[in-house]
Amino acid sequence: MAEESFYGVTLTAEDNSETWDVVDEDYSRGQKLVIKQILLGAEAKDNEFNVVEVTSQKDTVQIPIAVLKAGETRAVNPDVEFYETKVTFKLIKGSGPVYIHGLTIKDDVEVVDMEEEDDEDEAEDVEIEHPKKRKIEQNADGKNAKNQKKK
Amino acid sequence: MAEESFYGVTLTAEDNSETWDVVDEDYSRGQKLVIKQILLGAEAKDNEFNVVEVTSQKDTVQIPIAVLKAGETRAVNPDVEFYETKVTFKLIKGSGPVYIHGLTIKDDVEVVDMEEEDDEDEAEDVEIEHPKKRKIEQNADGKNAKNQKKK
Amino acid sequence: MAEESFYGVTLTAEDNSETWDVVDEDYSRGQKLVIKQILLGAEAKDNEFNVVEVTSQKDTVQIPIAVLKAGETRAVNPDVEFYETKVTFKLIKGSGPVYIHGLTIKDDVEVVDMEEEDDEDEAEDVEIEHPKKRKIEQNADGKNAKNQKKK
Amino acid sequence: MAEESFYGVTLTAEDNSETWDVVDEDYSRGQKLVIKQILLGAEAKDNEFNVVEVTSQKDTVQIPIAVLKAGETRAVNPDVEFYETKVTFKLIKGSGPVYIHGLTIKDDVEVVDMEEEDDEDEAEDVEIEHPKKRKIEQNADGKNAKNQKKK
Amino acid sequence: MAEESFYGVTLTAEDNSETWDVVDEDYSRGQKLVIKQILLGAEAKDNEFNVVEVTSQKDTVQIPIAVLKAGETRAVNPDVEFYETKVTFKLIKGSGPVYIHGLTIKDDVEVVDMEEEDDEDEAEDVEIEHPKKRKIEQNADGKNAKNQKKK
Repeated sequence: MAEESFYGVTLTAEDNSETWDVVDEDYSRGQKLVIKQILLGAEAKDNEFNVVEVTSQKDTVQIPIAVLKAGETRAVNPDVEFYETKVTFKLIKGSGPVYIHGLTIKDDVEVVDMEEEDDEDEAEDVEIEHPKKRKIEQNADGKNAKNQKKK
Repeated sequence: MAEESFYGVTLTAEDNSETWDVVDEDYSRGQKLVIKQILLGAEAKDNEFNVVEVTSQKDTVQIPIAVLKAGETRAVNPDVEFYETKVTFKLIKGSGPVYIHGLTIKDDVEVVDMEEEDDEDEAEDVEIEHPKKRKIEQNADGKNAKNQKKK
Repeated sequence: MAEESFYGVTLTAEDNSETWDVVDEDYSRGQKLVIKQILLGAEAKDNEFNVVEVTSQKDTVQIPIAVLKAGETRAVNPDVEFYETKVTFKLIKGSGPVYIHGLTIKDDVEVVDMEEEDDEDEAEDVEIEHPKKRKIEQNADGKNAKNQKKK
Repeated sequence: MAEESFYGVTLTAEDNSETWDVVDEDYSRGQKLVIKQILLGAEAKDNEFNVVEVTSQKDTVQIPIAVLKAGETRAVNPDVEFYETKVTFKLIKGSGPVYIHGLTIKDDVEVVDMEEEDDEDEAEDVEIEHPKKRKIEQNADGKNAKNQKKK
Repeated sequence: MAEESFYGVTLTAEDNSETWDVVDEDYSRGQKLVIKQILLGAEAKDNEFNVVEVTSQKDTVQIPIAVLKAGETRAVNPDVEFYETKVTFKLIKGSGPVYIHGLTIKDDVEVVDMEEEDDEDEAEDVEIEHPKKRKIEQNADGKNAKNQKKK
């Protein structure tokens, strides 16, 4: 489902920050970044802690997400998702290298909604309800649907 | 599907408890908290156990969910879910810091049901069954459907 | 989807066995227990093995599912499921405490089938096939569908 | 979805091989074995490697899938799937015991296709397309659909 | 869903590279490789790092994905996906053996779209919208749909 890509970035003492963002303001809905693994490189110094902090703009959260140390913890598997938000990873302790692995997923939500509008015109003569349209709104546009109801 | 957000909280000796709850009583159905990783901070004391206990109000369960110790266990990945309930995490042993990572998910179940009611009015002239409506009730409202049947 | 609850139980030398079962014979289909994590408590003795054995009644399997030891293996993540069966966990070695974490899931399969029957009556005048109904049977009731076909 | 069962087998020096196979040639499609955890028993010898090799007949692959050693690696979580194929697990190094945990899943794919044929007959008078049927074929019978197209 | 196969390859000092690619240019959409586990063999040398680097052609990413060392890290579980792209794994450090385990998945996306065209012809007399067709385009062909809209 949807369009997905491998996500892989490297943090080091010199290049200690990396930011991911949704790609297009108009079609930003449904995009997310999933972080599967954070891995300490073979070149990391012995007994040095390497700490990666994440900042999620929409969720206004800033928190360490990986604490790695050669000889103790080589990798963690957070398996967390950042949905429709700008995200920054920063190596706040240690000199790395630290590798961050995951996926980016785009759902192309808005496009589908607009095509469904066309269906409504075609079908209005026979007055049969649009079973899939409700389902799609539920999945993709739950927040807007809720707001409209309260008007 | 649904609306989701990153969940990240920090427990320390001074701030040793954190509670998550569903956000709105009327629309509380379909909300859940998923805990993916519990991680011991780099500042944790050597050989000190750090134990996080979870209390799930609806399930009336109180149990340790993470036992962490520097040099032995830096992180656990519980991957458990708390569904439609108030949940409290407490650092009952150790001075932390301990980081809890996960997701909160809202399904906006009720809103969809109300829109489906409108569909029923529009479509009653042609008497064609609502295939998606049954599916949605099955997924989102199984408990109520069961109760109604028993009347 | 479905109704789910957090599952958490503690095994110790004194209270070394715990059984989970489906809740209602008539509506037992679609119920399952998912075991996500088995965790050794901070109070466990050094160098003592703690072994949890699982017995799945329907699958007639009895096998250790967790082997834990302080200083070596604090937690395992089996991520296995027990579907429509009685399950017993027993601490067969060690004095614990051992914590078992997971989810119980109810799909309310039977209820949906009965509602679909009503749809069939309503719709038979217009002779339009029931697209969702077949899908629901496939997902929820594959076994029965198979039996009926053989008659 | 589908019918699933817990899968648990034990390998030892004396009983070092175990084979899983699809259960019925006519209805073998959609069956799979998922391996979630491979765990070294408490009785395993210190510093002895225990290696489990898997042979997947359809995929013609033979490869170690678990390398376990007391004091170093007590468990691995492969989370791999063997789909519509005979699979053999063999303890090629070490004396065990080694426990293999997972799930077997049956989708009952063929049965659904045959029921859909009946729908086609019932509905042909009104000439309304079968929206769900295409979806089911896509999911369950993609390979056959492809072959038919090439004729 | 879809057709899937077990993926297992071995990297050694002599045979240190392995490439996976989509199988047919015309039907390459919807194909992906999922990497679940990377495991160090029992024959690996003590205290030698074994590093596997991945190159994803479409995503133009080249990054280490596993850092393994006997006595410290026997296995990692990246759980990442490579979607519609050529992927190369290379043992850039150490002599192995290293085992890579996962799944390959084919969705047969194009075939379904072409069958849906036929449905359109059959159904045009009754002018009922095609609820599933939009859904399938959303899932499988979101990128193309987006491009067409902008024309």
